[in-house]
Amino acid sequence: MKEKGTRNGHSAGRRRLIAGVAAGLGGAVVGQAHDDDDVDPRLSVPDDSTKLQGPPPSELGARSGFEKPRRLVSRPEPSGGSRTPLQDLSGIVTPSDLHFERHHGGIPKIDPERYSLLVHGMVERPTVFSLSDLKRFPSTSKLHFLECSGSGGAALREPREDLSPQEVDGLTSTSEWTGVPLALILKEVGASPEARWFLAESMDAAVMTRSIPVGKAWDDAMIAYGQNGEPLRPGNGYPARLFLPGWEGNSNVKWLRRIELSDRPFFTREETSKYSDPLPGGKSRMFSFDMDVKSIITFPTFPNRLDGEGWWEIRGIAWTGRGKIAKVEISTDGGKSWEDAELQGPVHSMCHTRFRKLWNWRGRPATLVSRATDETGATQPTKQEFIEARGIGTRYHFNNLRGWNIRRDGTIGFTLI
Amino acid sequence: MKEKGTRNGHSAGRRRLIAGVAAGLGGAVVGQAHDDDDVDPRLSVPDDSTKLQGPPPSELGARSGFEKPRRLVSRPEPSGGSRTPLQDLSGIVTPSDLHFERHHGGIPKIDPERYSLLVHGMVERPTVFSLSDLKRFPSTSKLHFLECSGSGGAALREPREDLSPQEVDGLTSTSEWTGVPLALILKEVGASPEARWFLAESMDAAVMTRSIPVGKAWDDAMIAYGQNGEPLRPGNGYPARLFLPGWEGNSNVKWLRRIELSDRPFFTREETSKYSDPLPGGKSRMFSFDMDVKSIITFPTFPNRLDGEGWWEIRGIAWTGRGKIAKVEISTDGGKSWEDAELQGPVHSMCHTRFRKLWNWRGRPATLVSRATDETGATQPTKQEFIEARGIGTRYHFNNLRGWNIRRDGTIGFTLI
Repeated sequence: MKEKGTRNGHSAGRRRLIAGVAAGLGGAVVGQAHDDDDVDPRLSVPDDSTKLQGPPPSELGARSGFEKPRRLVSRPEPSGGSRTPLQDLSGIVTPSDLHFERHHGGIPKIDPERYSLLVHGMVERPTVFSLSDLKRFPSTSKLHFLECSGSGGAALREPREDLSPQEVDGLTSTSEWTGVPLALILKEVGASPEARWFLAESMDAAVMTRSIPVGKAWDDAMIAYGQNGEPLRPGNGYPARLFLPGWEGNSNVKWLRRIELSDRPFFTREETSKYSDPLPGGKSRMFSFDMDVKSIITFPTFPNRLDGEGWWEIRGIAWTGRGKIAKVEISTDGGKSWEDAELQGPVHSMCHTRFRKLWNWRGRPATLVSRATDETGATQPTKQEFIEARGIGTRYHFNNLRGWNIRRDGTIGFTLI
Repeated sequence: MKEKGTRNGHSAGRRRLIAGVAAGLGGAVVGQAHDDDDVDPRLSVPDDSTKLQGPPPSELGARSGFEKPRRLVSRPEPSGGSRTPLQDLSGIVTPSDLHFERHHGGIPKIDPERYSLLVHGMVERPTVFSLSDLKRFPSTSKLHFLECSGSGGAALREPREDLSPQEVDGLTSTSEWTGVPLALILKEVGASPEARWFLAESMDAAVMTRSIPVGKAWDDAMIAYGQNGEPLRPGNGYPARLFLPGWEGNSNVKWLRRIELSDRPFFTREETSKYSDPLPGGKSRMFSFDMDVKSIITFPTFPNRLDGEGWWEIRGIAWTGRGKIAKVEISTDGGKSWEDAELQGPVHSMCHTRFRKLWNWRGRPATLVSRATDETGATQPTKQEFIEARGIGTRYHFNNLRGWNIRRDGTIGFTLI
């Protein structure tokens, strides 16, 4: 890897010398390296970059040493998660190494040559597909968000002023996913018209397993093997995963090894002990797949601060599992009044949508809130409305409004509305 | 960085042991690492991944050890280039570390805190902008391709059967670019209505400098600081570059330090000694900014082979600097007959567009060709038409048809039509 070569070839001392020589003599020395983690990158910046030839292109283009976006690992355990640094990102694409992860048995290591997917149950021709088999089918590529159904839960249960967008909603990310439409696989195996559900089973140590209505397979489900142009990263299901546009993350079973068609759901451990949502009155909501309409402002937010009055661009993302975002409104007075934000087009279905609005800050305390509405007319509830509808014990699908208190000194704190 | 921690913490020997223990005993050991470059990744794949808890999520999600997409570095020199592995990619997004580069004085190392952009010349208020200043302006994000004007030249001058898509057209890539519209900066400085051109100057060792018609600034030019959600990579202009949608790569000046407005072009070294295109009869074409309509099949191509007869999906990308791709046609008989391919929607303007077409290979020799047409009606010429129009000495904007000979044994060779 480039990182290794760089580290071997150039000590920090050598790099300082190069910069020093170049700054002093104006010589055209070929410099090196942007990607060292343990050296202050300022040490190797020449005084005049036009007097120093830089390093040539390399096989992989590393990040600048001045930029260290990182996921936040909440629990470094096989059942842990990592959160996308939403406050550091622009646009809608999440770099693949910053895509959130949430695992149940860690990340299995899989040889793509030995990978196989069994499709059986209510089918005419039970079939085992290799990865090459899957890639030979007609393919499709779509920009879609993926979100953990628990996203936003910690922020509702334990709101604190020092939560960043990454901590509040870092369990959502957007990628361009490539794969084979599951409908083509079902046709290939001769799926029975009587089949109503299918089981999706992972080859991870948790044997993560979910029941999915077969209508989603005929509609837009895919078996994905590509993410942002390249193969899936291991933490996102390499070499192949189920992808269900707009549906809660855990149902998008990673490291997919088996699909079984049936006329009924399987009531797996993951949908009885987990991913059923307790409601008031001792009831539970099962198979709540759709991700609800949501939004979050990503700037200005904690831990940033506004370093002066005047015009600032309020920026954020909105998304919904039920189609396209139709509207995002912004309040600067904690929800008393609202104005439309601009949406960055083209707006993709079931995809992060970037919104923006100019705001003239007068230096007085303010509470910024975003409220998204999707094309079905669904919109985001207040915290009170959300808890009245779902109870305080609810564990998934937290789409209540998120807000940010701007203080007189420009510092910012998270709040619920 | 993650790579380093992994390397320090786990020798290859230890990793082999973990895999061995797990395979033998079925114990739930926490395994490690997908990203070692020097160890055969198969050595650490457990026989049964469900019996071995994998590593937890980490701050950065590395690639699988089985996947090593790499740019091809043509000349490892400060004036060299690196090419995107088009044959390895799916969809339209190019991962940022695989985006092509083409430099004139290597990659300068720039401290974002010390970065500044001077805008002066025919303006009311000459101004120096810091990076923070630029980021405070209203922003925009767009998916666009970027391509070196020399892309495809080597393949025309020295066609060889063993050229891959990366070698033919690897000097084009697509990213989601984020930045401030240049028009806002021009309004801020009070650009004169008499200004017709502007100079864009880099802070690299070549002081790369181009003259740009000011109309492009008022239209869709931006000063970009974001690429695929994160800050620009150093090889793509960190911390800020000019971005001119649809225009030849060199005019999208990286590491931008100065913009000077004028009533005439500057005739810089780069537009007299280079980037003027010799035509027949001793004439030259100057300021040929628009990238022409192009396409390339990325599968099946050299170095892959078809391992059997039957249905295969022909896949590729098409793009144009003049708007949207309207149509891509595929020929399997070297250009005698054509059929429409399917375009992956939504089609973005001035952006790679993925096309696909199913093809039933009968095991006989065939020549696959793609031909793109854009919304202006422009289409791709044959090699002969191209040379007749532009002469054999032409150096830029090679949009002639590319083809691939499928041999009886399934091996594939590049060809021009």
